[in-house]
Amino acid sequence: MTANDQKSGDRLGFVGLGIMGGGMAANLCRAGHDVTVYNRTASKTKPLTELGATVVASPAELAASCDIVFVCVSDTPDVEQVLFGASGLAERLRPGSLIIDHSTVSPTRTRDWAKQLADKDVGYVDAPVSGGSEGAANGTLSVMAGGEQAAVERARPYLDAVGSTITHVGPVGTGQLCKLVNQVLVVVSMLGVAEGLVLAQAGGLDPQVAVAATKGGAGGSWMLANRGPQIAARDFRPGFTIDLQQKDLRLVLEAADELGVPAVATSLIHQLYRTLQAEGLGGEGNHGLVKAIEKLAGLTVRSDQR
Amino acid sequence: MTANDQKSGDRLGFVGLGIMGGGMAANLCRAGHDVTVYNRTASKTKPLTELGATVVASPAELAASCDIVFVCVSDTPDVEQVLFGASGLAERLRPGSLIIDHSTVSPTRTRDWAKQLADKDVGYVDAPVSGGSEGAANGTLSVMAGGEQAAVERARPYLDAVGSTITHVGPVGTGQLCKLVNQVLVVVSMLGVAEGLVLAQAGGLDPQVAVAATKGGAGGSWMLANRGPQIAARDFRPGFTIDLQQKDLRLVLEAADELGVPAVATSLIHQLYRTLQAEGLGGEGNHGLVKAIEKLAGLTVRSDQR
Repeated sequence: MTANDQKSGDRLGFVGLGIMGGGMAANLCRAGHDVTVYNRTASKTKPLTELGATVVASPAELAASCDIVFVCVSDTPDVEQVLFGASGLAERLRPGSLIIDHSTVSPTRTRDWAKQLADKDVGYVDAPVSGGSEGAANGTLSVMAGGEQAAVERARPYLDAVGSTITHVGPVGTGQLCKLVNQVLVVVSMLGVAEGLVLAQAGGLDPQVAVAATKGGAGGSWMLANRGPQIAARDFRPGFTIDLQQKDLRLVLEAADELGVPAVATSLIHQLYRTLQAEGLGGEGNHGLVKAIEKLAGLTVRSDQR
Repeated sequence: MTANDQKSGDRLGFVGLGIMGGGMAANLCRAGHDVTVYNRTASKTKPLTELGATVVASPAELAASCDIVFVCVSDTPDVEQVLFGASGLAERLRPGSLIIDHSTVSPTRTRDWAKQLADKDVGYVDAPVSGGSEGAANGTLSVMAGGEQAAVERARPYLDAVGSTITHVGPVGTGQLCKLVNQVLVVVSMLGVAEGLVLAQAGGLDPQVAVAATKGGAGGSWMLANRGPQIAARDFRPGFTIDLQQKDLRLVLEAADELGVPAVATSLIHQLYRTLQAEGLGGEGNHGLVKAIEKLAGLTVRSDQR
């Protein structure tokens, strides 16, 4: 039996079959792995059983039969509940097993959890992803992995089934931090696009022309090239919703608070998004930020192309 | 004689032979055009005379002998002086001639000047550029041209000698506005990179790794890809200095004020850069913005690799 045979013999568990986790678990099944799944809402396990997955009734039960357990839930308290709550994974995780957390959650709490699990000889890799539901479905996510070298290498063959770019960014917790840095870059970039295009519009410069004339230069960004034309077309259908963005920004602001660094732009943007949530626009795409700038300018929040 | 022959017979004038204008005027000479130059500091005309340019003693004298006059000076009052000051262009510009202003200046004042000159049957194209001194030297600038269609088309063969991308963005003044939108995009993008990398560093994530892991995603930007690695290497040599950036941001804030739109991010960045100017760092690259965030975090402004 070679090392590779042993690896492919790992029994995998997956907790959290939402829009992201569901796609990722399906790709692990399709890659031929032995996958056991748990989800709070049991109906979401159906597409996985059709791919051959086994369903269990609690995280603890899942831990009892798995070597590597993937978690993909919404927020910090959710991961804590899955790990350490009643019938949680920690009750029955066995020595030598490994947790891979794909959720986007607190880097500090992540380090705490990894430490508690290390005392039980359970490994930990924080592996938040970017690339959206499409990336989860197609197995083309970017994975930012934090953990010990050996743990990340053990995880890598399975991460390759869910993502196309797997980057080991540093020790436990740095995967989460890298995801938060990514979110800072995303929203501040968005603020620039919003502020720039409102200025263009106010001065009689067609926003589509402004995007075309600037996107190839030093002010260019993914946001400008991809969301700029949508803003100009007043198309606010979500790639990533304001409500989800706000959850991630709250994590950024918590991390900045714990680390004692300022987050002047991110905190401003968090407040601006809040004004949009207050108007019931939390389900729109994060490029709706432009409407907050328009409101500040006394412009009416215009109706959208849905 | 074809229309093209007539165009190439235009006598060109160039006022302002600084680091940008000098390179652009040289490219007009190299393209075989008949070029007359004026510069306040006469010594800067020497490289142009070596390329065959004629030197005159005032803008007025230049206007008397030229069909198309290019202007590339520092700021709004400088253009006003060149146009309407004592011995300015307006004293002797002839009906049917055309001004092409490559300076970055006020869109509102630009429209005023164009209107005054239109009364004398003199055309006007505002054509600010981006791409830096290297772009000026190599003729690869991006030109954002505002003006009437016929005027821009008349200018285009000559703009092709100084730039590689010529975009007609709208009526007179919109070229300047587009340049200001570009500057908003540049600095807000920079703020995101600064805030993100300070967060990474504080949390024990290597900034170079953070750049590599995020630059291909939705938070990616020219700034992140090009200035992120320089920030991580503490290399603050200028591509574009803070002092020059501040002049352009002042124009953005003036325009936003006139148009009645908020510029919340740009105004914040203008103040942050001011704290760096107060420390004598105005000659550093605009990516030095990260030092302002570090100062807010109570981190010492570190010495640079020069």
